Amino acid sequence: MAMLMEGIAAPAGANNREAETVLILKATEDKFGGMIIDSPSLPRDTSVFLHSLQHSLVKWKAQGKRGVWLKLPLNQSELVHLAIQEGFKYHHAESTYVMLVIWLADDVPSTIPANASHQVGVGAFVLNSKGEILAVQEKSGVFQGGSIWKMPTGSVNQGEDIFAGAIREVKEETGIDTEFVQVVGFRQAHKVAFEKSDIFFLCVLRPLTSGITVQDTELTAAKWMPLAEFSAQDYLKQRKMLKKMLDVCIATTEEPAYQGFKMEDMQAGTGRRPQNFYYNA
Amino acid sequence: MAMLMEGIAAPAGANNREAETVLILKATEDKFGGMIIDSPSLPRDTSVFLHSLQHSLVKWKAQGKRGVWLKLPLNQSELVHLAIQEGFKYHHAESTYVMLVIWLADDVPSTIPANASHQVGVGAFVLNSKGEILAVQEKSGVFQGGSIWKMPTGSVNQGEDIFAGAIREVKEETGIDTEFVQVVGFRQAHKVAFEKSDIFFLCVLRPLTSGITVQDTELTAAKWMPLAEFSAQDYLKQRKMLKKMLDVCIATTEEPAYQGFKMEDMQAGTGRRPQNFYYNA
Repeated sequence: MAMLMEGIAAPAGANNREAETVLILKATEDKFGGMIIDSPSLPRDTSVFLHSLQHSLVKWKAQGKRGVWLKLPLNQSELVHLAIQEGFKYHHAESTYVMLVIWLADDVPSTIPANASHQVGVGAFVLNSKGEILAVQEKSGVFQGGSIWKMPTGSVNQGEDIFAGAIREVKEETGIDTEFVQVVGFRQAHKVAFEKSDIFFLCVLRPLTSGITVQDTELTAAKWMPLAEFSAQDYLKQRKMLKKMLDVCIATTEEPAYQGFKMEDMQAGTGRRPQNFYYNA
Repeated sequence: MAMLMEGIAAPAGANNREAETVLILKATEDKFGGMIIDSPSLPRDTSVFLHSLQHSLVKWKAQGKRGVWLKLPLNQSELVHLAIQEGFKYHHAESTYVMLVIWLADDVPSTIPANASHQVGVGAFVLNSKGEILAVQEKSGVFQGGSIWKMPTGSVNQGEDIFAGAIREVKEETGIDTEFVQVVGFRQAHKVAFEKSDIFFLCVLRPLTSGITVQDTELTAAKWMPLAEFSAQDYLKQRKMLKKMLDVCIATTEEPAYQGFKMEDMQAGTGRRPQNFYYNA
């Protein structure tokens, strides 16, 4: 039984038609006094959906419900427009669905949580025992097609740990296995993509292997390069941020050594959600 | 002139109707071989929109275009369903619009950038010259309704600097003016809201004022509290993460002092986009 039947009502303008069953949409309560509409059980008939939604919102508002969430997958996109007509707004979207929300409590400020605001990137300083840095040349991006050697960089995936993202990117781009040592700094920038901000974590990784396999979809080349040669590249003179990042990485190899943030897994033994704390251990 | 006229074509199934003008949607090229459809100029007639979209996609694909972006504000939500029928997927959404995208290049892997994956939060350790910590009690959240005293915390707004977010939250919640000193650590957690991850930056701020004004929409109380009393609270014994965070903050007041990451504005004089670098200066 996908929905709860509730009473009989005639939709507006339907005086001379047959009475129509109005349904309250199936929904679950959230922890914050709101309702989450159960998408799989929604009526496929758009007219039934619309009347049921209208009726449900009136009822929930009378009950003091606050936010109402409606997650619509691609194959229910015909309902997006109807929900928006009833006052829903977009909250966020992923490839396969859009999440809509409406705030019903006129007298209470909205406590609807913000959408994700940041992308997260990583860069990796990988120095071997010969004093050579793992350097790559990229096919696309700011330095595409040039002769610029840079550190491996990439995006942290949704749900991925920062340290794990750095290890993965180095492995994907160069085939080199590494272990995480520390985050030596991070850069925040704004309006990097779609008005979103970006936090880039600069990581020091220790190489565990030496044989390079170049990932040719993203890179034109990868190699172990003497650090002095890498540092002497012209583009670093014009790129204050990149120069500073390299300086900080190099400082970790000097005495007294620069101290960044190590990672500690804080979940162990707590039964709580996975979480890592990065700090100057 | 909102759109470019291009030829005359009859839509499928319209053999006996009048020939209909098919329009190529107005669009601009992006830097990555894609097209960005100009939303304000879209036809309001859904049938014209659909035929124009179909025709445009065929043309752009033949031209070797790759990604096609379609940003639809709330008042054009009737077009969402039509675009999805033609193969568009959701990319992201904000309150007032949804962004759709389609990848046309069958033989090239999609390079469509990921959506934002992280929310960013801040917490503030604010200690005055009497050794008192700025402590608050919250109306909602994990500790709602209890007698727990905690540091002020909040979310960083889209486009807001981390250090500025911390200063703003303290000001909003308690009325205290502060200046940023350093980030002493950060915690990454996953699936915090809507499958998104969260990075929480623990900041030390220096108080510039002392008179507290409690923000009563979010808080039940705020006060300056002896640090020893704050640290002795029972809940910290069961909360390994919160205890570690407090320990790190306290370590900044001891000798030799714990060193976190200071902030440096890296934009100055570069003419590039605003960006801040946080590192152990």
